Amino acid sequence: MFENKERTSLEELGEFGLIKHLTDNFKLAHESSVKGIGDDAAVLDFKDKQALISTDLLLEGVHFDLSYVPLIHLGYKAVQVNLSDIYAMNGVATQITVSLGVSSKFPLEAVEEIYKGIELACNKFNIDLIGGDTSTSRQGLVISVTSIGYAAKEDITYRNGAQEGDLLCVSGDLGGAYVGLQILEREKQIFLENPQIQPDLEGKDYIIERQLKPEGRRDVVDLLAQLKIKPTAMIDVSDGLASEILHITNQSDKGCTIYEDKLPIDPVTYETARELGLDPTVCALNGGEDYELLFTIKQTDYEKLKNDVDISIIGHITDKNSGVKMISKSDVVHELKAQGWNAFKN
Amino acid sequence: MFENKERTSLEELGEFGLIKHLTDNFKLAHESSVKGIGDDAAVLDFKDKQALISTDLLLEGVHFDLSYVPLIHLGYKAVQVNLSDIYAMNGVATQITVSLGVSSKFPLEAVEEIYKGIELACNKFNIDLIGGDTSTSRQGLVISVTSIGYAAKEDITYRNGAQEGDLLCVSGDLGGAYVGLQILEREKQIFLENPQIQPDLEGKDYIIERQLKPEGRRDVVDLLAQLKIKPTAMIDVSDGLASEILHITNQSDKGCTIYEDKLPIDPVTYETARELGLDPTVCALNGGEDYELLFTIKQTDYEKLKNDVDISIIGHITDKNSGVKMISKSDVVHELKAQGWNAFKN
Repeated sequence: MFENKERTSLEELGEFGLIKHLTDNFKLAHESSVKGIGDDAAVLDFKDKQALISTDLLLEGVHFDLSYVPLIHLGYKAVQVNLSDIYAMNGVATQITVSLGVSSKFPLEAVEEIYKGIELACNKFNIDLIGGDTSTSRQGLVISVTSIGYAAKEDITYRNGAQEGDLLCVSGDLGGAYVGLQILEREKQIFLENPQIQPDLEGKDYIIERQLKPEGRRDVVDLLAQLKIKPTAMIDVSDGLASEILHITNQSDKGCTIYEDKLPIDPVTYETARELGLDPTVCALNGGEDYELLFTIKQTDYEKLKNDVDISIIGHITDKNSGVKMISKSDVVHELKAQGWNAFKN
Repeated sequence: MFENKERTSLEELGEFGLIKHLTDNFKLAHESSVKGIGDDAAVLDFKDKQALISTDLLLEGVHFDLSYVPLIHLGYKAVQVNLSDIYAMNGVATQITVSLGVSSKFPLEAVEEIYKGIELACNKFNIDLIGGDTSTSRQGLVISVTSIGYAAKEDITYRNGAQEGDLLCVSGDLGGAYVGLQILEREKQIFLENPQIQPDLEGKDYIIERQLKPEGRRDVVDLLAQLKIKPTAMIDVSDGLASEILHITNQSDKGCTIYEDKLPIDPVTYETARELGLDPTVCALNGGEDYELLFTIKQTDYEKLKNDVDISIIGHITDKNSGVKMISKSDVVHELKAQGWNAFKN
């Protein structure tokens, strides 16, 4: 990627020089960011709000493949997946820390690309970068992001608040990120077998973008506030819809019924899944990495949301003994199981 | 290490099972820990205090060598080095998140050892484990810890507050962790050449412990509060004394003079350095990983501290133009340079 450019070695700069170089453009915008990078710890002041903290570790070869993930997208996504967890608490994300482990053979320009992506995400979502740790890695690229946000105590939405009769809602559409990944993997294999063949991503832009450039749904948090809806439970879809539904039902000690024909699947996702011999419903249920918000609302809030095209009502909460089920298009009842991403299998 | 025990595979448990299994013993003790592990984000409530956030990434082969670092010590140290940053802000550490990347070939019992060390550190320093992320790693072991603490706004000590005439103080002694590491490296080489030879660590307990089991100096933060001393600047000694002094002088826009004969060096460190052909003063200046606190105080606070055997006054702050110097035992003036650990060289 950097063959024709001059390379600057990381050794020359050293850790502190590198951090300064990479973070000079990042300005603190939040009143709560009292002190950012440059001391032993960052200092935050939330006054009467409660702070939210979330952290994610991304490892090369496990969470991303540098052969088809551009570094700028990687930086962007690393931030987004983390912010998504703060939004899933019905909070406002305000700060992040970023720790990076990179090979000392990595040129500065490559690390800069990652930081460009981080900066894009920070600017777009109004986030202050307040600290981190940068180090050489003997193995692959390692990115650890911790995000911090806040919310008023009464607005925070946990996973355990779903009540019988609540409606189960999901934002956007599902399965796209997973099907996009299958296309990238397919093209990688073709390229490995014959490097002369250019990747064929024609018409797949939407699902490729779902995989490479997911967006945390801060807009959904804003929408809910605007509509004066406080979800009874909420989670983001990172491991797959089925797995997330089970988190809500387990923690709320409830059951749930969803309807296959209500699952929001984009036409490109649907067609491409078929093309690849995959069941679009299975992709939506188990694919993961959609970073949509899954939440439950009281039935009395139905009128406020029913006309929003970006929110789908896919089922309802039942008593625990009724189990967690999907009614298929042909009216067959399936028990839902978490077949999402197992961090120790994939 | 686990040859004779039954191994439990991580695949069987999966990520959520593993997190639950490992963190079941960790109870939340702080009123500020509103919600810990088990939701999208942890929730903290500091009311009228300011929050402190610090993060560190530890990578196998760079920050630790599993051939001589027991896993329990690794877990303990990963927490300590992070708490140390909160103490260096003159704050109280209260919570941590821990993200772990481990090979799926790692048995459960090995991950449990790491968590035992984390638990020991949490119990000893009164820390709530509130979140994290656990994942397979295709390469080495990866540990990312973020620590959270708090302090009253007026108590927080930054690196940039040192004033001309202030006294430069350091807790404990220096160079031990580095010399301990040299001994461990030496014994590793001997073992690799002849596995029949048992490691010879006789009489080296103190410095081996300094390397493997450092302790964050919360007691120094407590002592300063008790003596009603607010340091004008503070930092922890992670990269080496010289490097940390330069952080304080650069950020405070001042100079500094220290005296070689005032550097606190333990006799075991001194003798072992000599044995290995190293200059004990250089080990103290550049060794790093001591996790002692380096701080500046007003001269008027001298009387309060002068009899404390655990705190050494090693020099004083000067104007910027006087530079950053060490007066040697033979009265030669040396300019101090940051020759501490370069994250991209070692």
